[in-house]
Amino acid sequence: MLRDECHWLSEMNKAACVALVTNGIIDRPVGANIAKALCAFEAAMLRNPSARTGDYKLAEPLLINLGGLDMTRLHAGRSRMDLVATNRRLVQRDALLAALRQLNTARASLLKFADLDRRALLPVYTQGRQSAAVPLGHYVGAYLAALEQEATALRDTYAQINQSPLGAGAGATSRFPIDRALLARCLGFEGVVENSLFAIEMSLLGLGARITASVNSGALIVSTLVADIEIQYARTIPWFTVREREGSLTSRSTSMPHKVNPTILNRVRMLASDLIGMGVSYLIKSHNVQHGMPDFKTTEPTKALLAYAGLMTDVSILMDNLDFAADVALAEVNSEYSAAAELADMLQQKAGVALRTGHHFASLIVDHGKLHRLKPADFPYDIAKAIYAEEARTAALEPTDLPLTEREFHQALSSQHMVDSAAGLGGPQAVEVDRMLMALRAALSRDTAWVTDQERAIHAATQMLDRNLLDLIRP
Amino acid sequence: MLRDECHWLSEMNKAACVALVTNGIIDRPVGANIAKALCAFEAAMLRNPSARTGDYKLAEPLLINLGGLDMTRLHAGRSRMDLVATNRRLVQRDALLAALRQLNTARASLLKFADLDRRALLPVYTQGRQSAAVPLGHYVGAYLAALEQEATALRDTYAQINQSPLGAGAGATSRFPIDRALLARCLGFEGVVENSLFAIEMSLLGLGARITASVNSGALIVSTLVADIEIQYARTIPWFTVREREGSLTSRSTSMPHKVNPTILNRVRMLASDLIGMGVSYLIKSHNVQHGMPDFKTTEPTKALLAYAGLMTDVSILMDNLDFAADVALAEVNSEYSAAAELADMLQQKAGVALRTGHHFASLIVDHGKLHRLKPADFPYDIAKAIYAEEARTAALEPTDLPLTEREFHQALSSQHMVDSAAGLGGPQAVEVDRMLMALRAALSRDTAWVTDQERAIHAATQMLDRNLLDLIRP
Amino acid sequence: MLRDECHWLSEMNKAACVALVTNGIIDRPVGANIAKALCAFEAAMLRNPSARTGDYKLAEPLLINLGGLDMTRLHAGRSRMDLVATNRRLVQRDALLAALRQLNTARASLLKFADLDRRALLPVYTQGRQSAAVPLGHYVGAYLAALEQEATALRDTYAQINQSPLGAGAGATSRFPIDRALLARCLGFEGVVENSLFAIEMSLLGLGARITASVNSGALIVSTLVADIEIQYARTIPWFTVREREGSLTSRSTSMPHKVNPTILNRVRMLASDLIGMGVSYLIKSHNVQHGMPDFKTTEPTKALLAYAGLMTDVSILMDNLDFAADVALAEVNSEYSAAAELADMLQQKAGVALRTGHHFASLIVDHGKLHRLKPADFPYDIAKAIYAEEARTAALEPTDLPLTEREFHQALSSQHMVDSAAGLGGPQAVEVDRMLMALRAALSRDTAWVTDQERAIHAATQMLDRNLLDLIRP
Amino acid sequence: MLRDECHWLSEMNKAACVALVTNGIIDRPVGANIAKALCAFEAAMLRNPSARTGDYKLAEPLLINLGGLDMTRLHAGRSRMDLVATNRRLVQRDALLAALRQLNTARASLLKFADLDRRALLPVYTQGRQSAAVPLGHYVGAYLAALEQEATALRDTYAQINQSPLGAGAGATSRFPIDRALLARCLGFEGVVENSLFAIEMSLLGLGARITASVNSGALIVSTLVADIEIQYARTIPWFTVREREGSLTSRSTSMPHKVNPTILNRVRMLASDLIGMGVSYLIKSHNVQHGMPDFKTTEPTKALLAYAGLMTDVSILMDNLDFAADVALAEVNSEYSAAAELADMLQQKAGVALRTGHHFASLIVDHGKLHRLKPADFPYDIAKAIYAEEARTAALEPTDLPLTEREFHQALSSQHMVDSAAGLGGPQAVEVDRMLMALRAALSRDTAWVTDQERAIHAATQMLDRNLLDLIRP
Repeated sequence: MLRDECHWLSEMNKAACVALVTNGIIDRPVGANIAKALCAFEAAMLRNPSARTGDYKLAEPLLINLGGLDMTRLHAGRSRMDLVATNRRLVQRDALLAALRQLNTARASLLKFADLDRRALLPVYTQGRQSAAVPLGHYVGAYLAALEQEATALRDTYAQINQSPLGAGAGATSRFPIDRALLARCLGFEGVVENSLFAIEMSLLGLGARITASVNSGALIVSTLVADIEIQYARTIPWFTVREREGSLTSRSTSMPHKVNPTILNRVRMLASDLIGMGVSYLIKSHNVQHGMPDFKTTEPTKALLAYAGLMTDVSILMDNLDFAADVALAEVNSEYSAAAELADMLQQKAGVALRTGHHFASLIVDHGKLHRLKPADFPYDIAKAIYAEEARTAALEPTDLPLTEREFHQALSSQHMVDSAAGLGGPQAVEVDRMLMALRAALSRDTAWVTDQERAIHAATQMLDRNLLDLIRP
Repeated sequence: MLRDECHWLSEMNKAACVALVTNGIIDRPVGANIAKALCAFEAAMLRNPSARTGDYKLAEPLLINLGGLDMTRLHAGRSRMDLVATNRRLVQRDALLAALRQLNTARASLLKFADLDRRALLPVYTQGRQSAAVPLGHYVGAYLAALEQEATALRDTYAQINQSPLGAGAGATSRFPIDRALLARCLGFEGVVENSLFAIEMSLLGLGARITASVNSGALIVSTLVADIEIQYARTIPWFTVREREGSLTSRSTSMPHKVNPTILNRVRMLASDLIGMGVSYLIKSHNVQHGMPDFKTTEPTKALLAYAGLMTDVSILMDNLDFAADVALAEVNSEYSAAAELADMLQQKAGVALRTGHHFASLIVDHGKLHRLKPADFPYDIAKAIYAEEARTAALEPTDLPLTEREFHQALSSQHMVDSAAGLGGPQAVEVDRMLMALRAALSRDTAWVTDQERAIHAATQMLDRNLLDLIRP
Repeated sequence: MLRDECHWLSEMNKAACVALVTNGIIDRPVGANIAKALCAFEAAMLRNPSARTGDYKLAEPLLINLGGLDMTRLHAGRSRMDLVATNRRLVQRDALLAALRQLNTARASLLKFADLDRRALLPVYTQGRQSAAVPLGHYVGAYLAALEQEATALRDTYAQINQSPLGAGAGATSRFPIDRALLARCLGFEGVVENSLFAIEMSLLGLGARITASVNSGALIVSTLVADIEIQYARTIPWFTVREREGSLTSRSTSMPHKVNPTILNRVRMLASDLIGMGVSYLIKSHNVQHGMPDFKTTEPTKALLAYAGLMTDVSILMDNLDFAADVALAEVNSEYSAAAELADMLQQKAGVALRTGHHFASLIVDHGKLHRLKPADFPYDIAKAIYAEEARTAALEPTDLPLTEREFHQALSSQHMVDSAAGLGGPQAVEVDRMLMALRAALSRDTAWVTDQERAIHAATQMLDRNLLDLIRP
Repeated sequence: MLRDECHWLSEMNKAACVALVTNGIIDRPVGANIAKALCAFEAAMLRNPSARTGDYKLAEPLLINLGGLDMTRLHAGRSRMDLVATNRRLVQRDALLAALRQLNTARASLLKFADLDRRALLPVYTQGRQSAAVPLGHYVGAYLAALEQEATALRDTYAQINQSPLGAGAGATSRFPIDRALLARCLGFEGVVENSLFAIEMSLLGLGARITASVNSGALIVSTLVADIEIQYARTIPWFTVREREGSLTSRSTSMPHKVNPTILNRVRMLASDLIGMGVSYLIKSHNVQHGMPDFKTTEPTKALLAYAGLMTDVSILMDNLDFAADVALAEVNSEYSAAAELADMLQQKAGVALRTGHHFASLIVDHGKLHRLKPADFPYDIAKAIYAEEARTAALEPTDLPLTEREFHQALSSQHMVDSAAGLGGPQAVEVDRMLMALRAALSRDTAWVTDQERAIHAATQMLDRNLLDLIRP
């Protein structure tokens, strides 16, 4: 759950109270009165949600009501500028954890989806044409690797967010010797943004750019995944199908009885587009404005993080409700000569035929096969031998007999055999796919634990602050 | 200097030769012949720059010319897909180092500029209005802190670039057991991008997004700096002025004898805009295309890095040729009541007047001063006392005498005094400004050394690869 | 006031009823029953605002409740696809009229602002430096000319919107011979979008692009105006000042007693940025998706039009509350040598001195003046004569006496004199400024009347449709 | 062919010469000398292409060389500001005509493509699923209608471009009474941009926004067309196939013998993306800069128009080389129940069955068919009757016999029959498709003639200017 700006204004007020007393800027008895009023303020805000505000200017009259004019001493050495700068970061911090949590959920759904049929083949593409077949586990693993990298980027962004500008005032601190490191610890920050002008100005710009960029990058990965699903979904019988659930996942047409629209699929793409639009809008808005302007200090990076969390939630739902028809995918795999490269490789490996020669022979096989609409499995061995002999003569190869048995020849044209023979690190062969999925699972566990650790650290700071405030009140 | 795609294609061919022999896929004698032909190829490319190509398809005929059909064995276990994916990263790696080098140069120029007059005051703004005065060293320090963060982002991006996709083939590796880690070491990469589909597809998308985002973030910081300079440059007598140098820095009008246009200033802003446009274009182009498409694999991230290097070069030139008229800036500082906050703070600190009361008194002083076009230094003490007495009565304060002497009152309205009194960490006071500038200088040294370290590591890998290739050739 | 999608769904149902009976597809008695149920539906929607929907799928159950299964005959020959396509245009049509109305209001405010002090001079700039002085009426007139062009673009866009896709069905019409032109007339459309696939698909894409582009163009003009105001607003004493009205126009700082922030000015710029962001987001979302997708059919163009109306409302408020300090502007004008071009022109016109020679002489005057911080009005005539004599000797001019009297020389350096002497069509001289403002005023009247005409035409269609429907019900 | 900025600078100089003499600002003999030098300048520029420049500042020394200092009198009443503003429009004007010419060529190619097999059915989609089948002529007609609208937008943009800012000077005209309308006529402009500040500033911003928007809109239409082709191109046997022509249209893989990559298809999409990127970059660059800045006056709108011409050229090549396999498309059409809506419509039209009831019955047919993987043509009539009887009982319909014969039932499920039965204006039936294609062809002829008319008008102005100049020279 996301704590609002009112919550954090309250926490910043408490932190100010503790620090001002600790640093001897206000007396302990005055501090005790302020502390009591702050507790009353917190309670009042909880009772009256419509009054909640993160703007100190709006909150000050109520604070004065509760504790008298002394309450304005809280504002010593600070300004709305550093309050806003700090509040942005505090809410962004929560929002980023929410985004990462949902990204992790989406990764879990992809891992589950990969295990629906880890070894089943499906086509992959280059330049829009089927280039090869790989097992589902390998294909999904590629997206999981991409999302793991997005998680890393979010963690790095978190480290940049989790620094405190509090105490920078309106950019020039003040004559009050407040311990900015103490303020930071009270709010669970890792450190302090030192230069007081940077703290309330340029650092927010850099941060906004970083957050929106991290979010956009994840949206691009998702848009690629959706495009993959969409492109074969246009078939009457696709291999990926969203389960029918009217309203949430799919929608039937009012006029076309045969239409079941994959609503969630299109929604995910549109959400990804919206996110990229948000990122670009941030750039447009922040560009060509001098320091001091509000344009780059808005809540848009926070909104982008929350929209990202929403996108990843929908990705998770999509993957949890996506069926995979292995037979349909295999039929498409088997209708294409995408293992023809294997034929050239076998000729090089088994008979020392130079790659370009083998490749040319394989091309002739493909051209003949396509011309006669033959599937690879049905390609006549005799014709293959005849083509090879001709090619060998042209290339002055000796001997001119095809150096593969009929079985070997048909194996060479089989995508399953090609996958099974793969020998490279990170390849589609079962042992590598299994090893990588295990590593992806471990990385997800690590990232999930990391989120929990951050939440605990914030919680611990909150409790420490409350203890220190109560110490002031107690006689 | 940027090595081109032809250079790196040649290096990848050498690495393939070394690995294929090491891994027993081709015999040593064949390897020796290939190695010789590769040296001849390299020499031919150096002799004939117009023939240079990074496209293996175009290079293959020449390779065959030089070493016969055996040369095509180099292509075993690889494809143009992983060659392109690797080449992109190799060129990006150099381009990023160039970008970081120029960013560091710009930082050095800013440090030099800050030292023109480190203690001289100039206005800073919030919401477009003068909010305070800070010393030049503090103001420039804020931008230096921002650029230091950009340098960190570039270093993180470098770590993501410096991983090898080589050996991933067309996304499914192959039956040849090539050691992908050895290929990576030969090219100076830190590690291997494992999943072979991810290696040639989604990883490039994530990388492009990351690079363009890092570049955009730096452009935004620069655009803010330019906007700052521009906004007061519209004055007939500005405090920042580009030195006149017709052509490179400035340009005289053909029809208006009085006009000296600050060409470089406008150029820097337009270059920053171009960079942001490039980043956004990358997002637009990469969005909504399925895996396998060329759209997100173009050289645009490289171009963005080079444009960034160009931008930072111009920022450096701009700062090296910017004059600062301390008297003009001070005149503007002294014409505004931007130290009025100090008046409230002194009343709280010296006489325990609550902040809101002191702030209200200060507002009345400002309103009176502005109405009568009085500068703060000329504000009559008697009137201040009268206003205070009235305010104290209203607030029921005792005593109603202004608790500041005439000297204290005028000190309180002085920006210089306000800066000197600042007590916060990271504030504008001399001791903090000096400390922070020293730290910024140290960070720049560290970042400069880091670039050199990376260049050395790449150079060492290149030498190691050449040695291994020569070992093959030698009897 | 904007009529919602529910209103227009209801109108489309009525139009379908009228057309189906007119074209003999349903019998008159059935039509009468349907007509009654449609009236009941309209009333029910007015009573229960939370039930209002523009989605036929959600409305159908209620329609069946009210009129039985016969109600579904209304859907003959149509589909949600053409309903949605038509509803988008109907709401866009209203939204565009709202946008144009507010644009016209903003133009009226600018005209009023120009008349605050039509003849008072203020600086204009090229390359960021003062290039000349023009009267306020001329300066504001330039923005008015720009906004007049925006109004023209909106009117052209309206003509593209105001075409009916209704009856296109799901892209292939149907076997029911519905008169699509009749449907169009019932809804106040000017014509029909013929090709049924284009009608529900590509035409929406082109329309969305056109609408968002029209809106972006207006936002750019506004952002330029705001940048103009902002750039001199950074002065302690600016010539444009937003009147203080806490909350709506300005905002006082909580910590800095001297700060009155021009909230509305910054808000207008941020709204303009938001608008451009919306336009770009539409491009991003609509790009690289095949026909049939929902991505380019969303309500975003409508939202952009409404946001544009909001922006123009704020521009109007800003201009209505902007003060112009003619003396401050004039002081800046008089401190710069921006009339120096006039000096060269007078020398050519009065004494036949070639422009380049005169220009060079004027440059020497400016350089001397700036070096000695002399204002143009204070430039010593003797020195001017000496400089001329030297320049004439260099250029071998005869005679070497400055061919201007002291009075003429100082006139030549006066911006007011330069403006008064202007002779070109569309120049800053009073007669042209007055003529152009009159023309701008006339154009605004014309555009205002045009909006009213469109509203009347829509209203007339609505009344005609209601009459036809009632005719069905009456015995 | 695009005339460069040097050509137009020369034309503007000639126009100035003619006008200055005509308006009595320079004497006829001086004018004659200037005219001769201008002819010499033109000849010199043609001889020495590397010296060509559109920048008056660079051209002036050569002009002085040729005609003495008197040549600088040409610059009376003008400035580089209005020269640049005018030159931009002159080059944009040519570039727009080039863009429109190539758009017209692309339209011609689409018309030819439609005629490959005007009546052959192919699927169209909504929400990414096959919604119906339409004839190729109807489908292509929808894109032609879209491109016709783009042509209209370009023509409107042309009218905005074709107005002259010349004589506006640096924004304030001058004391020289030059006839701006005469200058405009000499250059073939339709009229004059009056307000002199608007002429050199805001009008360029509005124009740049309009041009880039027109271009982006066309790019979006193209990207949709490409996405359509691409989505079914991923099939092993697609219905649209780019003819193989290595290098220009397609490219074979170096490692995968079966791959023929549709290079041109992907290139067209990437060019469309580049165009949109250019448009967005223009918005980013022009935003938040005050009047007078160079940012929105660059040649980017011209580049966008030329890139658009390039895109349309490639679209034309793509369509000229695209094969359409009618049998493959028909097989996909016949494998889907996309005519099921017709079943409901026939029940309503022939037997008065309410649409919702008929629709529900059709849905049951589809569900049964899909479950048993039956093609529509193979659906057993008996089962249809049984399903109808059950549905009729549930809906309390009388009689419960399916009111369609076996032949009618199978006709109702046939897409061809559905198309043939369509009765709506703009529908897929042959008569409407033919009528609309004829109208599209007529519109193309009209637009082609329009381009020629503009070219002639420009040519006529050039000739008139040359005659007037020669008149000056002749004794």
